Amino acid sequence: MKLLYPTSLKLNIELIQGFNASLHPYDVKAPIPEDLVDADIMVTWTNTPDNLRDACARMKNLRWIQSLAAGPNDVISAGFDLNKITLTTGSGLHDHTVAEHTLGLLLNAARRFYEMRDYQVNNTWAAHLGGPQPDRPAGAFTTLRDARVLIWGYGNIAKALAPHLVGLGAKVRGIARSTGVRNGIEVYSDDRLAELLPETDALVMILPGDESTRHVLNSDRIAQLPKHAWVVNVGRGISIDEDALADALNEGRLGGAALDVFKTEPLPEDSRLWKAKNVIVSPHAAGGRPQNAEKLIAENLRRFAAGQKLKNAY
Amino acid sequence: MKLLYPTSLKLNIELIQGFNASLHPYDVKAPIPEDLVDADIMVTWTNTPDNLRDACARMKNLRWIQSLAAGPNDVISAGFDLNKITLTTGSGLHDHTVAEHTLGLLLNAARRFYEMRDYQVNNTWAAHLGGPQPDRPAGAFTTLRDARVLIWGYGNIAKALAPHLVGLGAKVRGIARSTGVRNGIEVYSDDRLAELLPETDALVMILPGDESTRHVLNSDRIAQLPKHAWVVNVGRGISIDEDALADALNEGRLGGAALDVFKTEPLPEDSRLWKAKNVIVSPHAAGGRPQNAEKLIAENLRRFAAGQKLKNAY
Repeated sequence: MKLLYPTSLKLNIELIQGFNASLHPYDVKAPIPEDLVDADIMVTWTNTPDNLRDACARMKNLRWIQSLAAGPNDVISAGFDLNKITLTTGSGLHDHTVAEHTLGLLLNAARRFYEMRDYQVNNTWAAHLGGPQPDRPAGAFTTLRDARVLIWGYGNIAKALAPHLVGLGAKVRGIARSTGVRNGIEVYSDDRLAELLPETDALVMILPGDESTRHVLNSDRIAQLPKHAWVVNVGRGISIDEDALADALNEGRLGGAALDVFKTEPLPEDSRLWKAKNVIVSPHAAGGRPQNAEKLIAENLRRFAAGQKLKNAY
Repeated sequence: MKLLYPTSLKLNIELIQGFNASLHPYDVKAPIPEDLVDADIMVTWTNTPDNLRDACARMKNLRWIQSLAAGPNDVISAGFDLNKITLTTGSGLHDHTVAEHTLGLLLNAARRFYEMRDYQVNNTWAAHLGGPQPDRPAGAFTTLRDARVLIWGYGNIAKALAPHLVGLGAKVRGIARSTGVRNGIEVYSDDRLAELLPETDALVMILPGDESTRHVLNSDRIAQLPKHAWVVNVGRGISIDEDALADALNEGRLGGAALDVFKTEPLPEDSRLWKAKNVIVSPHAAGGRPQNAEKLIAENLRRFAAGQKLKNAY
């Protein structure tokens, strides 16, 4: 078997040796070299659309594509025949990076670093944010200690994030299709949102981007959140009605929003979100760095060689 | 016995009842009322200098002052006779708040939220900070995972902070007078600094403010840090030579500095630190909210009534 691996990230090739496959580096921004066009397996990461279309057209032996992205939209739109070719995703490779960035956004919001920066650029001491302060005041999100955090979209990223929140003293609950108590966290169905949103100081959204999740956070649901609550979105921009959000923030009906994803990216210069009150704009920076890809590739190489169902099959 | 407690913070008085002491609220910004001047015990928090001077002059029965500040400089400079009056501090009451804020500063630095804000105020997408990124690149502090964090001043706040860092994948070591392995963290004497500083991605300083710690981070020691390293100071401003720091930052000899404390506070408008490269200014905001003060007061009330040595005696 012949496997192509991308040079767009550092991979420790030693960790995927030992299978009955020759391993070949390739440039994700260029056409597939003639001598590699007969590859059976292709690992992708930040391939250009042209590269993927070229692969699709010329790689007739391709049987399996391993994307390192959690959501391989690039591969899907390139035109591969996914009845013939197995596509596996990089789900799981971004759990810890996204969890850490999310934690950072929550602390940025609670401790108001974004507001401190606005004062700093004016050489002004933000006295109201320092010195003696109320301890865990009701009606404000100022610390994770005793904060009621609801993670909407309780999957693997949430599982990586929750222990850090619990360790800092937060009370964490989740919303997902598979409900129950998972690693000590109570996970509910979304039919409980009307009951849970009013008991939320920080709503963390980690939902995939598809029609079923379009505008799930709309003005009705925003109205169910306390007016001091923060929304943190690290899933996909389509989950939030951005106009309803901007209205609620500017009218003081919501405490703030820390957003890493948007309906349109890059966020257009004229978006109301840049300057809405208490908004933190993060430029889709939470992930972008697959970790331990070799382990996933090796496991799937083993399964592929054994004729078993692959991990993260799309 | 008569105990005065401040109304400058919420205290759950029930938790300090049951001792042989009557409990009386008092205003920390006003002279001591005539009927309270004979109190034996006074709890202080953000008392004005005038209030403390008045207490010192008129409270002839005072035997014990329980400050809720970690460093009760206000009480010390008011003129009380500390040979006659036992002073106990609020050390320990600020561990978790300062630890959380420090964690937030570290993530602000690593994930570059401060830089994202600079772009946000200009409605500009910071593309270089998002999308595909190198994973844990050498020569940069971009994540706590695998980051080498050195905590200089390994005391109770460091003990509260370390588990969060370790949980996020950091490699943590400490510097303190009492050395050894503490809760799994190797703590060294400061004679090891020349060896440890070069192996540091983030230096967290939590030192008290006195002559012995003046400018312990000076240009020589800054030169021992890698040029990508960040310095986070949540102790006292006197620990750092601010000119040497500004030079190093502006000349690219240091990665950045997240500072919650300064030689002069509020930081003067003309300080070089406001606009030095890669500086995060936090306005002494890490603590300021004593937590579980009642538990300390109750324990010390018990000891005081039993004639035992008080906790946190100055």
